[in-house]
This record gives sequence, structure tokens and C-alpha cells, in this order.
Amino acid sequence: MTDDSTSISDEAADRVRASFARQRFMTYLGATITDVRKGEVTIRLDARPELAQQHGYIHAGVTSAIADSAGGYAALTLMDAASEVLTVEYKINLLAPARGDHLEAVGTVVRAGRTLTVCNVDVWAIGPDGRTLIAAGQQTLISVGPGR
Amino acid sequence: MTDDSTSISDEAADRVRASFARQRFMTYLGATITDVRKGEVTIRLDARPELAQQHGYIHAGVTSAIADSAGGYAALTLMDAASEVLTVEYKINLLAPARGDHLEAVGTVVRAGRTLTVCNVDVWAIGPDGRTLIAAGQQTLISVGPGR
Amino acid sequence: MTDDSTSISDEAADRVRASFARQRFMTYLGATITDVRKGEVTIRLDARPELAQQHGYIHAGVTSAIADSAGGYAALTLMDAASEVLTVEYKINLLAPARGDHLEAVGTVVRAGRTLTVCNVDVWAIGPDGRTLIAAGQQTLISVGPGR
Amino acid sequence: MTDDSTSISDEAADRVRASFARQRFMTYLGATITDVRKGEVTIRLDARPELAQQHGYIHAGVTSAIADSAGGYAALTLMDAASEVLTVEYKINLLAPARGDHLEAVGTVVRAGRTLTVCNVDVWAIGPDGRTLIAAGQQTLISVGPGR
Repeated sequence: MTDDSTSISDEAADRVRASFARQRFMTYLGATITDVRKGEVTIRLDARPELAQQHGYIHAGVTSAIADSAGGYAALTLMDAASEVLTVEYKINLLAPARGDHLEAVGTVVRAGRTLTVCNVDVWAIGPDGRTLIAAGQQTLISVGPGR
Repeated sequence: MTDDSTSISDEAADRVRASFARQRFMTYLGATITDVRKGEVTIRLDARPELAQQHGYIHAGVTSAIADSAGGYAALTLMDAASEVLTVEYKINLLAPARGDHLEAVGTVVRAGRTLTVCNVDVWAIGPDGRTLIAAGQQTLISVGPGR
Repeated sequence: MTDDSTSISDEAADRVRASFARQRFMTYLGATITDVRKGEVTIRLDARPELAQQHGYIHAGVTSAIADSAGGYAALTLMDAASEVLTVEYKINLLAPARGDHLEAVGTVVRAGRTLTVCNVDVWAIGPDGRTLIAAGQQTLISVGPGR
Repeated sequence: MTDDSTSISDEAADRVRASFARQRFMTYLGATITDVRKGEVTIRLDARPELAQQHGYIHAGVTSAIADSAGGYAALTLMDAASEVLTVEYKINLLAPARGDHLEAVGTVVRAGRTLTVCNVDVWAIGPDGRTLIAAGQQTLISVGPGR
């Protein structure tokens, strides 16, 4: 038990991790959830040759995919158990080549409304040279539940 | 030989296809380039279980990845042989679930400048029920060459 | 009476024009609605010194403001009389300097859902040199009604 | 004189303020620059009836205009005296109605490259009820110099 204001219940964290586990594409990429807090989720992805673009760096599509998922699950941490979340749209700036050993995508809720949630997403590349911000995005999500 | 105003030289089309072939991630997804015109490129992707999100539809990250590539290669068709193109940023609206047999992403150049190119990208899902627009995006790309 | 598929009822067009007339900022800019069709609205703005940025062209904020309004009213044409529309977000690319005698912003609905509507917005500058696309955007709107 | 790491030279701050003063549209809105730091600029705008949308709140076009300017001048603080900056594109989420006595737009550089700069922009409404984040955006700018 913790009194950290960013902590969430074990049940809520389990719900996020279970939903993530059902995303076959995240498994196919090799992505894992490494941190689940209230309004903030971190996804990690190890670099692999299959994920490269034409210059050998990780493909922007991969970077975007884990960014989108990190934001989506960050939004889900603030919703009740019956709700699900869909990405309405996102915008992402690719700031630097995705070189390094692994990527870390951090989704953070900026504003949670009744229907819509807005998140920031940052993606970092981590390698021998340190930690570089390679992408920054902003995302809108919609809450959908059984009653909708 | 053709006088179609949207046709490009065989050499330019080969250059686009060769670059695409070097994107290991596109191969990993199972994406192929099906059409290369002046300022417009189409990418096709067959649905597979590995590409699904938690409800069994194709993951938004997959939709975005082929959208980004279609726009990038559309921009490349208007550049000289020595140039390459990088995505600066894009914004994508996910309009409907990506259900169907395959997806088709169409990138179209809206404005080609000396340094920056702006593209529209549309993604369609094609299945027994017909053809549905599932995503629409707008993308900014930068031309980088050997001298840069 | 007309059977043009893009025509809307006089009542619906009046509702759009009345809402626009209540936007004091549009009056302050000098903007007017010049065309109201089903899912498409055009706004016109004459160039004036007060609307300039530091180089004498029309300020990007002005271009964006009429683009946002054109999209918002395009969405409103597809809603019932009790609904209102709010901009959730938009993204706009500024393609060329806004030089010319006047601007024309055209908002077009790409997809109208029950809750969310997505529009494209194009802004043209018209002058002695012809008609130039100076901005292109994509916008998400939410329908809000008395029951919400 | 100050050794604050976010301070910039008087000359650079004067350059930013002089460029802002040449933006007739900012004067027309009643906007003023209230803070100029290295990579961060704040613009203030008092609410006035002329700036309203149909419900009496400040128009999203006004919010966007000062957000765009705040980001643009934040980018300019990091450039040499001969450079100018143009907005390539931006995306903005409108999070809450712009009610209050005045708005404050804060532009912050996220990454400054040789050609392109990416900024975050936040807009706050300040009134008797406190300070509310009403808009959040992300912007791409291009540096243009005398040699371009």
C-alpha cells in the first residue's frame, strides 16, 4: 500500500495491463507496459531489426504506435471499470532519429473530461549516449462504455 | 510510355519501391506498395491477427504507420534522385474501426515546397461490406539531401 | 426550391447565419459567410491593415480563426436545430503567405458521427495573381445539445 | 543584470518585442508580451466584448492567435539576430471555455533544430475563480534568414 498521489488501485492497474495484453500488435512489436500510475503510463520497446525504417533506425510508425498506446492507457487509468477508451486523433512531431537500445513512451493526461480526455505523449530513445526525446505528441481520446 | 500527367518515370518509381523495400518494418507488417504516381502513393496491408488491438480490429498504430509511409513516399515522388524525405510531424483522425480484409493508405501531396512538403493521407478498410474511410491525416515532411 | 444534394433548408441556413452573426469576433475581423451548403460553409474576409503580421500579410491567427469557424459551421449544417457544436481541436498547416485582396475559408465535413464530426478546412488567398491555397487544416468537433 | 539561465540579452528581448509591436493584429486584439525568457514567451490578452464567440466567451480564434504568437516568439528567442521565424503548422486542443478577465498564452521551445523548432503552447484563463488551462497546443516553426 502506498499514499503516493499518483498511485492507482491494484485492480485498476491490472485492468490496464490486461487490456494491453489483449493488444496482439503490442506483443508483435515486443512492447511492454513498465509503469502504470494515475494519469500516466509508460511503455517500453526494445530495438529490433524488424522494426527499422530504411536507415536502420526504428520506424516512425513504431514510435507512433507505442506513443498512441501509452496515451490511451494513461486515459484509461482515470476511467471507471466499465469504460473503454478510443483514440479520436493524435498529432506527433518526430524530433530526432529513433536510435538506441530501446524506446520509452510516456503518456500523461492533460485534461480528463466526462467524454473526452487529452494526453501528452513523449517518446525517448535510450542508448549508450543517454536519453533523447525523439517524439512529442498530443492526443484526444473518447470514453466509450456499455451504456453508449 | 504514357502521357498521363500523374505518371512518373520508371526510374523514379523504382527509387520509391527500392526505398520502401528497405523499410524492414513495412515488410514485418506485410505492407506493399500497390501504386506509385506523381505526388500520390498507395500502400496495401492485409489484415492479420498479429496486427490487432484488444477488440480484434487492426491497431491504430498499424493504420498510422502505413498512412505515414504513404505520405512520405508520395512526397518522395516529387523530389530529385539525391533527396530523401523525413516526416516532421503528422496528425491523424481515426474515423472508424479498422475492420475488413485489407487496408489501403493513399498519400497525396497538397503542397510541395523547396524544403517542406505537406500531404494528405487517407486510409480505407476494404471488406465484404465495401470500402470505408477509417482514418484521415495531414502530414509535414522535410527534404534532406546529400548536401545537408 | 432546389433538388441540389448539397442544399439545405432555408431554416437550417438561417440558423447557421444567425449563430455566425452572434460571433462578435467574426464581425470585428470583418468576416462574412458567403455560402452555406450541406456539410460545407464558406467564409470570406477582406484584407485590412489591422489584420496584418509583421510583414504586412494577414496574420496566421486570422487565417486560423476563419478556418475554425468555417469548419464549425459546416458541422452545424448537419445537426438538428437543438444542437450546438464546439471545436475539440484542430491542426492547420500554413502553406504560403496570406497576401491578396481577400481570403476564403472553406470548411467541409469529412465524417459526421453521433458525437464527433471531422472537417477539412482550406483557406485561399485571392488577389490580382489569382487564387492560392494558403492553409489546410483538419478539425474535430463535438456536438452539444440541451440534453447534455 | 541576472545570471538566471532562462534570461536573454536585452538586445534579444528588444528584438522580440519590436517584432511583436509590428504585428498590427496583436495590437488590434489588445495583446501584449508580458515575459520574454530564453525559449519561453508569455502573451497577455484582456477579455473584451469584440473578441467573443456566440456564447460570450473569448473566441477560439483569439485563443489560437495568441498561442501561435507565443510559440513563434519563444522560438525567436533562440535564433540569431538575422533570422526570422514562420509557423509551419500547429495543432491546438480547446480544453475549456475561455471565460475570465484575461488570457495568458505561454509558448515554450521543446526542441530547437537548425531549420525547425517545435514548441508547446498553453493558454490559461484567469478570473475570479482562479487560473484554468483552456488550450494546449504543439507547433512547428521554420527559421528563415536573409540568405533564404
